[in-house]
Amino acid sequence: MASAFSPIDGGSATSPGGFSAAAAHAGLKADGALDVALLVSATSCATAGAFTKNALRAAPVIYDAEMLADRPGRTRAVAMNARVANACTGAAGLEAARAMARAAEEAAGLPPHTALVLSTGVIGVPLPVEKVARGLREAAAKLSPTGGADAARAIMTTDTRPKHCAVRLETPTGPIIIGGMAKGAGMIHPDMATLLGVLTTDAVSEPGTLRPFWKRVVDRTFNAISVDGDTSTNDTALFLANGHAGIDPSRDGATWKLFEEAVTEVARTLALAIVEDGEGATKRLEIQIVGAQTEAHAREVGRAIARSTLVKTAIYGGDPNWGRVLAAAGVAGVSLIAERISLQAGTSNGWLTLASGGATALADPAQARAIFEQKAIRLRLDLGLGRAEAVVWTCDLSPDYVRINSDYTS
Amino acid sequence: MASAFSPIDGGSATSPGGFSAAAAHAGLKADGALDVALLVSATSCATAGAFTKNALRAAPVIYDAEMLADRPGRTRAVAMNARVANACTGAAGLEAARAMARAAEEAAGLPPHTALVLSTGVIGVPLPVEKVARGLREAAAKLSPTGGADAARAIMTTDTRPKHCAVRLETPTGPIIIGGMAKGAGMIHPDMATLLGVLTTDAVSEPGTLRPFWKRVVDRTFNAISVDGDTSTNDTALFLANGHAGIDPSRDGATWKLFEEAVTEVARTLALAIVEDGEGATKRLEIQIVGAQTEAHAREVGRAIARSTLVKTAIYGGDPNWGRVLAAAGVAGVSLIAERISLQAGTSNGWLTLASGGATALADPAQARAIFEQKAIRLRLDLGLGRAEAVVWTCDLSPDYVRINSDYTS
Repeated sequence: MASAFSPIDGGSATSPGGFSAAAAHAGLKADGALDVALLVSATSCATAGAFTKNALRAAPVIYDAEMLADRPGRTRAVAMNARVANACTGAAGLEAARAMARAAEEAAGLPPHTALVLSTGVIGVPLPVEKVARGLREAAAKLSPTGGADAARAIMTTDTRPKHCAVRLETPTGPIIIGGMAKGAGMIHPDMATLLGVLTTDAVSEPGTLRPFWKRVVDRTFNAISVDGDTSTNDTALFLANGHAGIDPSRDGATWKLFEEAVTEVARTLALAIVEDGEGATKRLEIQIVGAQTEAHAREVGRAIARSTLVKTAIYGGDPNWGRVLAAAGVAGVSLIAERISLQAGTSNGWLTLASGGATALADPAQARAIFEQKAIRLRLDLGLGRAEAVVWTCDLSPDYVRINSDYTS
Repeated sequence: MASAFSPIDGGSATSPGGFSAAAAHAGLKADGALDVALLVSATSCATAGAFTKNALRAAPVIYDAEMLADRPGRTRAVAMNARVANACTGAAGLEAARAMARAAEEAAGLPPHTALVLSTGVIGVPLPVEKVARGLREAAAKLSPTGGADAARAIMTTDTRPKHCAVRLETPTGPIIIGGMAKGAGMIHPDMATLLGVLTTDAVSEPGTLRPFWKRVVDRTFNAISVDGDTSTNDTALFLANGHAGIDPSRDGATWKLFEEAVTEVARTLALAIVEDGEGATKRLEIQIVGAQTEAHAREVGRAIARSTLVKTAIYGGDPNWGRVLAAAGVAGVSLIAERISLQAGTSNGWLTLASGGATALADPAQARAIFEQKAIRLRLDLGLGRAEAVVWTCDLSPDYVRINSDYTS
């Protein structure tokens, strides 16, 4: 069956109708690199946000969460900067986030309280509001429907490449475009890193519908990747729907389902790009958890495996040490019954059983090692407790990660 | 004030009266190294145990937990082996643990159901019961009141040195001895590693008193260290009181308090030896959390910091990147108020403030770097929420850790 949606070559957050963007150099990064970006919608967007669970939320996170609680249907712009996270900056930081939003609104000629803000970079350093405002004015002067790629480049910190994409979904009443941009988290100069994701669509929606929809998508994409287990003070994923296409995909069940698949595809593409661009990462591990009682349980078990430094170092070394995978599953805080558990590894012609009944099986060692030496490794853990499942992705832990992360501030 | 207890030179788990031990080579390790140990008490012990919270508990953990639930006042022996963890081994593994206990009881001429078992080593490999039983018989034939050091050596896996100590506590009615042995966890060929700790005393006690006492001690010692955040399937800490000294320290409040201090000192000494012997570890980090609402909250915040690979790589690099410490505190699952938080670093003449009011302070960079370049670093995080506190210890994360852990099974 042909897919109902298709990737757009070079697509970005400005691929959906009615969105424009631009970036500027505001003097935050060295060498004149783009460090400030502005994304603007021609009309008000219904917006949903997913924010860090870190108890110490950065000022832009606090600001955006309040905005989306108060006026989730009034978003017109997202202002972004790299290099300074505006985190652990106290009351002055919150005032700086407000000033950054106001600067974006003024620069783009928008009403007050219509801009959201995203910051990423070093923790604990004051945001240079004047520089950022100047950059936003410069960006506002050159907003373009092809500016999404520049915006994605501007929010890079130690990402080695910009991350953006878009898909086109055909519906019975016409096409809908979904676009997005993101930057990486952890294993990428992590104190300058944060997961930032902005998805856009020209579909019609409203905040009450978008909120649970976006939570489902984020749980299966941005929240299903783990790079080094650290949760940034700034992690944010936004979804803006401006209605430019005039089509509300929630009006019929089949279209709504396809729309969710298409949005998930964009978010997953960006999330996997983050995993693959992890600093020091040499391999990707996909962990499928099946047979769980709930999807949340499945995800927790997957995340526990993805967080384990013992699993990640074994993956780095190509070491078929699956006892570590079972041991890591046991720390997820989910009740398990050892006798019901089985673990398999993906091969080019099916699944190889590594353990069953909670006990390690004696798989062919050479075949097992060949699997663990692959660049992309797939494991499937069946908990034998139910029918829910989840997929989690991570990368390996290499000596480069340690070297890169052991000296930043100086 | 002179301490009421003093270390015993070369002390071990057999320093308290009535305990004897021996070790043997059962052919599990290469090169004839000691790999099986037997610790025996002349009389029945009141015993308390603390076990791994991993949902997939290894067979010896399941066996011991059942024994201590059924007959916590009847322990006469602890049989131990290295090299094979008897974890993820299913029903056959539980039968092997039972057989190992029976072999120890028969070898030492003890009644049934009086021996506990501890195993450490590779996950998922069957326990070679016959070899272990032969080793236990050999050990039983040479039990000695000075055998504690050999026993500590036998349970080493990738530990670089045996870990044992003892203290002598003077009480108004005579001396009590507390001894102990342990082996390391994580960062020490972690799939062969597990935290095993056995403390012994000749004090009189009974299981109902010992159980809450031991939980308090373990929470502040073995559970207050983090090496790589992984929780083994086999982690176990036992405390055996055989009453040989004829003194029940719980009879008067002052003695009971001193007894807790002395037992805590032995457990802390062993726990810190584990941190310092972590594979690839080059530095030690002590994290004091003060101003918490409860001790459990304080410990959770400390453990979140100790688990953070970003904090641990910064410590390795001597990088005074304390924004990472604040960010890591935020993921502990404990509610925090950013404005009330302050962070200080220990110096030779007091505490240097790194952050206060949730915002990073501008400490002298050279002084801050000098602190983070020390071999032993102390941080104090004040949450500003209450009066409870806890201390947690960890080591740094070095490229050696990754190299060492990336290839084991082959």
